[in-house]
Amino acid sequence: MESASGADSGPKPGDRVRVERDEDTYEGVFLPSSTAESVVLKLDGGYNVAVSRANASVAVLEGGAYDVESAQDVSEGSASSEITFDADLPTVSLISTGGTIASTIDYRTGAVTARFDAEDVLRAVPDLAGRANYRGRVVANVLSENMTPAIWQELARAVYEEIEAGTDGIVVMHGTDTMQFSAAALAFCLSLPVPVVFTGSQRSADRPSSDNVINAVCAVEAAKAACAEALVCMHASESDDQCALHRGTRVRKNHTSRRDAFETVGRKPLGHVTYDDEGISVDFHREHAERGACDLKIAPELETDVELLKFTPGTDSALLDACAGKAGLVLEGTGLGHVHTDWIPRIAELVDSGTTIAMTSGCIDGRVCDRVYDTGRDLLDAGVIEAEDTLPGTAKVKLMWALANAEEPKALMGTSLAGECTTRSTPWA
Amino acid sequence: MESASGADSGPKPGDRVRVERDEDTYEGVFLPSSTAESVVLKLDGGYNVAVSRANASVAVLEGGAYDVESAQDVSEGSASSEITFDADLPTVSLISTGGTIASTIDYRTGAVTARFDAEDVLRAVPDLAGRANYRGRVVANVLSENMTPAIWQELARAVYEEIEAGTDGIVVMHGTDTMQFSAAALAFCLSLPVPVVFTGSQRSADRPSSDNVINAVCAVEAAKAACAEALVCMHASESDDQCALHRGTRVRKNHTSRRDAFETVGRKPLGHVTYDDEGISVDFHREHAERGACDLKIAPELETDVELLKFTPGTDSALLDACAGKAGLVLEGTGLGHVHTDWIPRIAELVDSGTTIAMTSGCIDGRVCDRVYDTGRDLLDAGVIEAEDTLPGTAKVKLMWALANAEEPKALMGTSLAGECTTRSTPWA
Repeated sequence: MESASGADSGPKPGDRVRVERDEDTYEGVFLPSSTAESVVLKLDGGYNVAVSRANASVAVLEGGAYDVESAQDVSEGSASSEITFDADLPTVSLISTGGTIASTIDYRTGAVTARFDAEDVLRAVPDLAGRANYRGRVVANVLSENMTPAIWQELARAVYEEIEAGTDGIVVMHGTDTMQFSAAALAFCLSLPVPVVFTGSQRSADRPSSDNVINAVCAVEAAKAACAEALVCMHASESDDQCALHRGTRVRKNHTSRRDAFETVGRKPLGHVTYDDEGISVDFHREHAERGACDLKIAPELETDVELLKFTPGTDSALLDACAGKAGLVLEGTGLGHVHTDWIPRIAELVDSGTTIAMTSGCIDGRVCDRVYDTGRDLLDAGVIEAEDTLPGTAKVKLMWALANAEEPKALMGTSLAGECTTRSTPWA
Repeated sequence: MESASGADSGPKPGDRVRVERDEDTYEGVFLPSSTAESVVLKLDGGYNVAVSRANASVAVLEGGAYDVESAQDVSEGSASSEITFDADLPTVSLISTGGTIASTIDYRTGAVTARFDAEDVLRAVPDLAGRANYRGRVVANVLSENMTPAIWQELARAVYEEIEAGTDGIVVMHGTDTMQFSAAALAFCLSLPVPVVFTGSQRSADRPSSDNVINAVCAVEAAKAACAEALVCMHASESDDQCALHRGTRVRKNHTSRRDAFETVGRKPLGHVTYDDEGISVDFHREHAERGACDLKIAPELETDVELLKFTPGTDSALLDACAGKAGLVLEGTGLGHVHTDWIPRIAELVDSGTTIAMTSGCIDGRVCDRVYDTGRDLLDAGVIEAEDTLPGTAKVKLMWALANAEEPKALMGTSLAGECTTRSTPWA
């Protein structure tokens, strides 16, 4: 497993090196994202650091602890290969969809642009080696703001095929912007006997504070664990030693840039992966679907003619009119689930013409309840369905799924299918 | 200040009473919301409790500690009266706009409907007596989902008149659903030398867990304090002894039903009002505008032809088309401020045709930054303005104000006018 490496030829990816510059000394693993201008190291704490080569000395301490080339049991497309299979290790499928975790530096423009195949991930994250046998495939290579329901369907089919082929768990590399929507989509489209763990990166790999190493390693460990749900695995705090495992239907990106941007709304995460000097451990704190408890099934059809419309004071009812004729509409109302009273007759018309309309709250946390105030009762009379405490974005995905798969989609919107909502008799609990 | 009260005529509002029923005993102040069916008491802890009169005994312990009648220095409309003026006390103006805090029980339907004049608030909250001389006026009586920019303007004018007339502080009674929008509107429309404190109630006064007493009392104390900003004063936690004071431009209702639903996004509240056995105290923890530091000014004009549009995966560009021709549009994008790449040419057309478009993030917390990724740079090239870390709802209100009042409204969207955003060189800070 040793790769040839010497001071003469300079450090190679995977080598352990010491970089000295001015009064600072860094020791860590030399990363392929190093350039002629700077050395990028993975420090022992998991952080990546970029050090300018100007006035710096770089010494190779030992040859690659990880042989990056031979560890690349990953190829583009659905034709997976399994080189140097270790029968003592579980098999984890890495599926890439794009995003920062999959991006490399675009020095032409000075910023980050998405270019990716799964091979690059393993090359950039030597810590993944030795944790599993890997199968890899690329489902998409899109910025996550460009993610579509059609790609969710492809992703669901890819996950299905990987599980059918015998993988022990799935890691989906995904841009963070819309990760929660894709995770929710898979939670509805699949009955899962193994974990499907979404992970991504809030900071690109060339940034000293990149979170891609820890997130990827923790996601692989979660994919080997006992919770067979669609999960999101991202930093649990601003420190670099723990990731949280969020249920895909209850998670939300709540900050634009923090590494711990993702939060389970209204409760604690399902679990955590702790990665420190003691090693790595996966713990679950709440009830979850157990590995192997259900059979693999897929129902990937989605009715994509569904909108999510947010109401705020002064919102023009022309936006509601623009939803006329749609198959489904999720309203993000105020408080317990309200819109301006003037909207209600038009909402009733849309319902009467066949649009299924579900109510959620712009408060994000808490349950809608349209039985308390006049506006709510009028909305119920108009035919609006309460989505209980389902997150607005999750409700949109769920309504897409319910309209395509259920005989009575309205009845499903207040019932938990994948942990997206709870049923209670009172909103005050 | 003693009102006549005796066991013969039954308890009167303000009387201290003991109610015994089955094995339970309650002591507290008898409230006017009591009916033939039930006794409603304000307990010493601040909670209201409703006890069925069936098999209950009610004993008057002492006559009204508060003379509800003579404390009613409040009348409907803008003609304020000042009865029994106490020169040792500051004057606080109570302005009502409607909402749960102003509602009474509608026994016909079994739920809560908004009916209100300011007199009712003082009648229902005896604890307000003795804290200030009160001036009262009703600006509106609407459920807060029906609040409009036109009412914000009336409210701004009413606040202006009250301050001009010499009041020491303002309390605005408001429904909780859209309180944050109205508070933001006043923050932009007024230059304030005294506090304007919004408060409301998440639970109606007849509920045992009603928060209306504590919220109203704490709001009056905040209105007497030194922070001359538009504030929101609501429960700080699920316990009943403290309210938080949130800057109006940074606050958000983050839960549909909890009493502590309101949170300052991304930082601690400006201050707290603590109300316990030791008494009541107001403390500020962060920099704020000081009482008297600026002159009273009003700029109430608003360009109401402004939309807030949320983008999520699959959102139909027909919604964007429905915003064509508008004066302003705030986009609630993904992550650092993105929409699907396919939207960008259409966004450029809207900008070219005269629509001012500002970008915010559906993450809610954190700063947008469209300089990091291709999508963002393309959005900037299309003419979209970054609203920095302004909340999406606040950005809508601000854009309404900026388009009506500023010569260069675009330049204002990234600059703090009322604490709504901060300026930093990097989104990673």
